[in-house]
Amino acid sequence: MFGRSYFCGEVPESAIGEKINLKGWVQRRRDLGGLIFIHLRDRTGIVQVVFNPETSKEALEVAEKVRSEYVVDVVGTVIARDESTFNPNLSTGKIEVQVEKMTIINESKTPPFMVEDDVEVSEDVRLKYRYLDLRRPVMFNTLKMRHQVTKVMRDFLDAEGFLDIETPILTKSTPEGARDYLVPSRVHPGEFYALPQSPQLFKQLLMVSGVERYYQIARCFRDEDLRADRQPEFTQLDIETSFMSAEEIQSMIEHMIQRIMKQVKGIDITVPFPRIPYDEAMGSYGSDKPDTRFELKLTDLSEVFQSSNFKVFAAAASTGGQVKAINVKKGATSYSRKDIDALTEYAARYGAKGLAWLKAEDDGLKGPIVKFFSEEELAAVNRILAVEKDDLILFVADKKKVVADALGALRLKIAKDLNLIDESKFNFLWVTDWPLLEYDEETGRYSAAHHPFTMPVREDIELLDSEPGKVRAQAYDIVLNGYELGGGSLRIFERDVQNKMFKALGFTEEEANEQFGFLLDAFDYGTPPHGGIALGLDRFVMLLTGRTNLRDTIAFPKTASASDLLTDAPGEVSQAQLLELNLASTVIK
Amino acid sequence: MFGRSYFCGEVPESAIGEKINLKGWVQRRRDLGGLIFIHLRDRTGIVQVVFNPETSKEALEVAEKVRSEYVVDVVGTVIARDESTFNPNLSTGKIEVQVEKMTIINESKTPPFMVEDDVEVSEDVRLKYRYLDLRRPVMFNTLKMRHQVTKVMRDFLDAEGFLDIETPILTKSTPEGARDYLVPSRVHPGEFYALPQSPQLFKQLLMVSGVERYYQIARCFRDEDLRADRQPEFTQLDIETSFMSAEEIQSMIEHMIQRIMKQVKGIDITVPFPRIPYDEAMGSYGSDKPDTRFELKLTDLSEVFQSSNFKVFAAAASTGGQVKAINVKKGATSYSRKDIDALTEYAARYGAKGLAWLKAEDDGLKGPIVKFFSEEELAAVNRILAVEKDDLILFVADKKKVVADALGALRLKIAKDLNLIDESKFNFLWVTDWPLLEYDEETGRYSAAHHPFTMPVREDIELLDSEPGKVRAQAYDIVLNGYELGGGSLRIFERDVQNKMFKALGFTEEEANEQFGFLLDAFDYGTPPHGGIALGLDRFVMLLTGRTNLRDTIAFPKTASASDLLTDAPGEVSQAQLLELNLASTVIK
Repeated sequence: MFGRSYFCGEVPESAIGEKINLKGWVQRRRDLGGLIFIHLRDRTGIVQVVFNPETSKEALEVAEKVRSEYVVDVVGTVIARDESTFNPNLSTGKIEVQVEKMTIINESKTPPFMVEDDVEVSEDVRLKYRYLDLRRPVMFNTLKMRHQVTKVMRDFLDAEGFLDIETPILTKSTPEGARDYLVPSRVHPGEFYALPQSPQLFKQLLMVSGVERYYQIARCFRDEDLRADRQPEFTQLDIETSFMSAEEIQSMIEHMIQRIMKQVKGIDITVPFPRIPYDEAMGSYGSDKPDTRFELKLTDLSEVFQSSNFKVFAAAASTGGQVKAINVKKGATSYSRKDIDALTEYAARYGAKGLAWLKAEDDGLKGPIVKFFSEEELAAVNRILAVEKDDLILFVADKKKVVADALGALRLKIAKDLNLIDESKFNFLWVTDWPLLEYDEETGRYSAAHHPFTMPVREDIELLDSEPGKVRAQAYDIVLNGYELGGGSLRIFERDVQNKMFKALGFTEEEANEQFGFLLDAFDYGTPPHGGIALGLDRFVMLLTGRTNLRDTIAFPKTASASDLLTDAPGEVSQAQLLELNLASTVIK
Repeated sequence: MFGRSYFCGEVPESAIGEKINLKGWVQRRRDLGGLIFIHLRDRTGIVQVVFNPETSKEALEVAEKVRSEYVVDVVGTVIARDESTFNPNLSTGKIEVQVEKMTIINESKTPPFMVEDDVEVSEDVRLKYRYLDLRRPVMFNTLKMRHQVTKVMRDFLDAEGFLDIETPILTKSTPEGARDYLVPSRVHPGEFYALPQSPQLFKQLLMVSGVERYYQIARCFRDEDLRADRQPEFTQLDIETSFMSAEEIQSMIEHMIQRIMKQVKGIDITVPFPRIPYDEAMGSYGSDKPDTRFELKLTDLSEVFQSSNFKVFAAAASTGGQVKAINVKKGATSYSRKDIDALTEYAARYGAKGLAWLKAEDDGLKGPIVKFFSEEELAAVNRILAVEKDDLILFVADKKKVVADALGALRLKIAKDLNLIDESKFNFLWVTDWPLLEYDEETGRYSAAHHPFTMPVREDIELLDSEPGKVRAQAYDIVLNGYELGGGSLRIFERDVQNKMFKALGFTEEEANEQFGFLLDAFDYGTPPHGGIALGLDRFVMLLTGRTNLRDTIAFPKTASASDLLTDAPGEVSQAQLLELNLASTVIK
């Protein structure tokens, strides 16, 4: 029992009358009429310990010295509280401990912020004093839940025959994908390792090895410019299997998540999860990671406005673009004209050149653009969008991608504005039927929608040479409440298909061999069909704990500028260290 | 069931008559009298599948095409073998499968070596084709056991209230200890992260955070010149606890190891493990990691030879050195004079300037040095070493450290030579009562015997200023069969003690604050007493699986020159990548 009788937060009523020993931190001290009351805290919670001169004058004298965050050892007797003094905020609120002896184990300076859940202090201060920040129950409980989540994952996967196998952190740099973190080699002058962006190649090689079922809770690294939901190092549950279909993989993951939700959150969720094809996700939600906790779907009105007098709509609808709308039920009363201007600005961030709108009033649809619409068009809008009084209709007409991005973003913003989201819901779903490749207009090249090892749909393989944009992928993303929780696919396991894929991505044969020759070679030696998935652990824990910041799920995270404010990393190193690595800094100080 | 009816190695006799589906690799094909027999392999083992023209001509035709390591899908009926054709080498040796249909899933070139346990091929080839090497059952089973070991560790620690918490891989460089791997920062020009040599500081900070029980199966990195039993990245079970005594920590680890031995190896081991004080380990075994599977202890004869006529002995014994001996029972017949010369050479590698020896013959001790010994000295040797006929006595007289090193090494060598080691034994023990500091004659400085955060024995703390060499540490190593499995200690948790320690190690106050200021600061805010341990996972798995090479326990290890022969890491990177990192290579190509 950790060298004590009970944890502070777990002293039971059944211990009344018992002489016990506790260890913990002083949460706060109150001096009251010659008595001292201390809230003693450890990772489980708080218990009140009381000092009075009748029980022990010595203990009372020690109590007079202690201050917040002192570490103390307490011996005393559990007594029942008078009902009038029950503290419903404490798990131990019906008892307290009459202290006979207290020893100060260690002292504390006044901490820069109080160790309690609601603390008003900048995140930078919390990160610098992370060891105090993590004492706050909300932070400890997040770490604890993270532990529980990985424990359920491991138990589930172990029972399914998966082996936990470690792959290297010092690997080879592959300039595809995100930017690598590099590690100079001392033994091989001028050469570098790279930290892995994921164990993708190694897990595929494990399938070539006949391991059949691999998993790892794997650290991954990307030297990207950071956003609130990115960290330079992050953790994923990495899974790979042989001989399984995409559906079998998905089903297994669903059952694992069902187990996690039950054991960690006590919530029953239904399997199978909904499958939403990529086109439908983009079409109805304007997103490849739809949040289905609310409706507010995008509706295509392109046909209605094919030859509209409203030229903006007609132009978009008749030249390969789209006219789409969302119907904000009862939104007419919530959004003033000024509010709609703000929405227009918001949509503009996603590329929309304008945001057309109509409000349903007593006598029909009104708004600055209504004059351009024919009766038939208005009737169609009313019918297709099932317009009722006080509805607000928002239109974007543009290229397909802009329409999806702008209306998809508006959909989320409005749902938050109007409180349409049931925060208690955990809506898991699969997005399936992805395109294999995405065309990048800037570079004029195709890039992999997932990664270059994703298996095309069999019958589309021959299109790789002729119409690469049409090739469908055997890929699937798992989405939770509008966040991409993970992505997976079946993988290419034949050398010639992989070569075709590299070619479609613009690799010369030489480049492909230089970078991925070892994988291509491996395919020559009896590679089984295989596939897998990777789930972002940090994000999953964030969503499970209802946090809004990835950093809160990581014990020692880095800031948006990739700094560790606690240890002050990165830092300067000695000239001797650089010399050994055959490196010179080009920074002039 | 992994998309099939059974695993190859697990088709049961109860399936006789059943039509089943199997998937796997062709281990070998034999054509015999119009029939074809294939040994089909997956990660569980082998089953024989049989093709005959009566059952299916088509399947037979496919079988004619397959070669070793082809991946196939087989449908057939399980039949009993005739007793005369039972194969006791296969777990499925009493049955075979009469094939009705076979599909080739993927082909294979002729592999560079056979996929079987005993393979005569250089390790370099195995590493280059690691994906084939890992198909060998002995390799797969090592990976599997590694998984099982960590699973038992996690289950045990979870039940004990430990939280699995990840600590950063991108950390701060602390030039103490081994050489760091550095990672240049792009965002902070001229600055570097370091890969952690261990999570030591972070786990202590977690104790400051009140986490109380932390563990992690943690990747660690050291840029050292490699030996057979070192890897640039290695894995340790890293544990830290608060409020526990050293004995409580040791006891917990013992129970965890007992569980591992039982569940993974089916072996009952007894707890508590023996505790051997450091001085006794060095004195009796000449090693701080004694192998107690055999005797052959070192015996101190310094007193006997204080004023011997044999000047080498007398000089050592009377000037603070030692004369010690081992008695190799019946060794006189095993070691010729030439063999003893070889032993002398071997001892010289450990610094011994000579190796004196005596053989017990019918008429007493004989040997070139016997003429220098008095009757009393010979009698004492006979008595103290319990000499019997044919014993071989080996003496080293030198400084204490040289005596221990040389005789300790000889003890191990001779045990191997004479087959004295019971390889079925797993002798765990603790080495306790370590010195806190070691004096380095070269630098004239003290260094930490474990690390700078090890807690001194309380009553020795004041000696840190005056006689640092005499300070004892609250440290403990765990040893298995002569290998250091791990080391731990209670840690310093008070700023002033930590400052004293840094001073004894020759840090200026400024240096200490520059490198470890965040830890010292943390000690100011209510740090609990804490301690922990780290166990080397790679080595533990090596010893459990009876391997002699750490690389065999790691899926994708590096060579002695820190290269990955499979992916060819480290490698060159582009000039653009270096530019972004504000670095220039000083290597001229």
